[in-house]
Amino acid sequence: MYNYTIPALDQRAGAEAKAYIDTLTKPVGSLGKLEEIAVQIAEMQGQFMPHLEKLGILVFAADHGVTEEGISAFPQEVTRQMVSNMAQGGAAINVFGRQQQAEFSLVDVGVKGEEFEEPVKNRKIRESTRNFAKEAAMTAEEALRAIQTGYEEAVALFEKGVDCLAVGEVGIGNTTASSAVAAAVTGLDPAELVGFGTGISSEQHAHKIDVVKRALDFHQPDAEDGYDILQKVGGLELAAMAGAMLAAATNRVPIILDGFISTAAACVAERLGKGTVNYMLLGHQSMEPGHQKAYSYLGKEPIVSLSMRLGEGTGAAVAFGVIQSAVRMVNEMATFESAGVSAKSE
Amino acid sequence: MYNYTIPALDQRAGAEAKAYIDTLTKPVGSLGKLEEIAVQIAEMQGQFMPHLEKLGILVFAADHGVTEEGISAFPQEVTRQMVSNMAQGGAAINVFGRQQQAEFSLVDVGVKGEEFEEPVKNRKIRESTRNFAKEAAMTAEEALRAIQTGYEEAVALFEKGVDCLAVGEVGIGNTTASSAVAAAVTGLDPAELVGFGTGISSEQHAHKIDVVKRALDFHQPDAEDGYDILQKVGGLELAAMAGAMLAAATNRVPIILDGFISTAAACVAERLGKGTVNYMLLGHQSMEPGHQKAYSYLGKEPIVSLSMRLGEGTGAAVAFGVIQSAVRMVNEMATFESAGVSAKSE
Repeated sequence: MYNYTIPALDQRAGAEAKAYIDTLTKPVGSLGKLEEIAVQIAEMQGQFMPHLEKLGILVFAADHGVTEEGISAFPQEVTRQMVSNMAQGGAAINVFGRQQQAEFSLVDVGVKGEEFEEPVKNRKIRESTRNFAKEAAMTAEEALRAIQTGYEEAVALFEKGVDCLAVGEVGIGNTTASSAVAAAVTGLDPAELVGFGTGISSEQHAHKIDVVKRALDFHQPDAEDGYDILQKVGGLELAAMAGAMLAAATNRVPIILDGFISTAAACVAERLGKGTVNYMLLGHQSMEPGHQKAYSYLGKEPIVSLSMRLGEGTGAAVAFGVIQSAVRMVNEMATFESAGVSAKSE
Repeated sequence: MYNYTIPALDQRAGAEAKAYIDTLTKPVGSLGKLEEIAVQIAEMQGQFMPHLEKLGILVFAADHGVTEEGISAFPQEVTRQMVSNMAQGGAAINVFGRQQQAEFSLVDVGVKGEEFEEPVKNRKIRESTRNFAKEAAMTAEEALRAIQTGYEEAVALFEKGVDCLAVGEVGIGNTTASSAVAAAVTGLDPAELVGFGTGISSEQHAHKIDVVKRALDFHQPDAEDGYDILQKVGGLELAAMAGAMLAAATNRVPIILDGFISTAAACVAERLGKGTVNYMLLGHQSMEPGHQKAYSYLGKEPIVSLSMRLGEGTGAAVAFGVIQSAVRMVNEMATFESAGVSAKSE
């Protein structure tokens, strides 16, 4: 299997950005996390003056065979209906994407049923994964193709001028696959990761934990091998999301993580390309309990915390405004010298 | 003294907004605080479909006689320099204002020295307050005029189409005045409210607490009387900010509070017009320690928490993007019925 080579962060650009920010007309450090974000983006982009021209929102859709086990509050056909709604601009991610003037791309990598019409991109690997409670979710070749598809679709956005990437998803059952993937990477007990998804009962929740535990016992995925994990207990959209993140990191493009599913994909992406994690900012803290466990594993802290649990990339899109504030601050604020403002009296 | 009459929130509009939000294509409650914000704005505006056309940022500038006591890290002339910088578009609030496409208004209500050129609005009540460590900060008539000036400047923005108001400030020494004002309203010990402002030493911090305590002992402001508090230990920009908030509440315009100074002004505004607090959203949590005490007193929770402590209205401006997401969500998302999406399977 291919291992992606991720460029190192540019520490020097980060240090230069920090020094420059300290010359801006404000008390040193008084813009808090905005200053940290600006420095991180400078390190990613390899230039002391960070820039952000256009957010790209890349949403991958797929179905999950494991829904046969009754782990979701919504029936499987809702994936298809949500894709149609998103294609028509009526989903939450469309709304926030328009607000952020983002380039939006919706890619079917594995929804059950026939191909969608435009603007949905048809890159179907197969119709739904297999039920990983009983067999591997996909073949090795399918996993590889899904990753590669995600990679290509991200590059297509970069070619359109996108220089910051939010990766979202739609797929009934995907919090179950994400729990399995995150547990496989981190070694955490699935009981700590499995949540209530779109709104299941306590009984269904216990069952969902049991399904994930038995699948991991059965498949024994290799914690160090992202391909093995995706193939055995992953999802087609999870694999594509990981591929898109690899493309971003390879091209020094900042990635905004969303909620639990996005963060589970990020865990796998780091296994496929060491250092991908350095190009990730965490948009928000989701209400899904596994999210905090997964992002702590990656060493991330959320930019906003709004008790959201919708997925689609919505938390990342909302957080983009804050990231944009951070970058604009460095680009547009006057310095003490240029503005003729007196320094602090010590 | 005049008491402002603030319209009651429209609970029915809020209930209708909540019911409508539950029909949108997402799991019920899954947009968390965005849903709460949308309902609050519906209650304020008195219509189930909240709207937001334009943010207004209203910054009041003034000097503080109490700087004679050595309570600030920056010399008093920095107020004047920061106003010039803001007039030229180089301050942080200008940057975030442009990002949010806000209508920006900068009003001198009491900066020491001569009048500024355009675009600064010259509404100087007097050149700096008096030193409240020794005498009342202003006369009753000056306090009244400052409040009225703030009210008028807010109305001028509403007439330009502004339907959401962030109220900011610039004024060396104003965290000291804000500590005194917040302590007077809430009855809290100044030691719990006084912070490090733009960056003073521990020794200066102890001295700043002492200055505030002695001023309150000396003046004995009436906790129930906002005019008395402003006159004795307030600031001209604090009075104008309170006036602007009264204008917003009177006109059912949502107010976004910023950090400690803004929240201290909000405490006084509530004393001048009971119910003004119902029209306030808290933009962010500042690092200034008194902020949390003051906003808890008002029963508010911050929308974002980014370790900022700059003032000017910057935290409010950054939070506006989140508020806009909330309102757009209600206006633009499809319903389950319109999108033909299946409901949850119970």
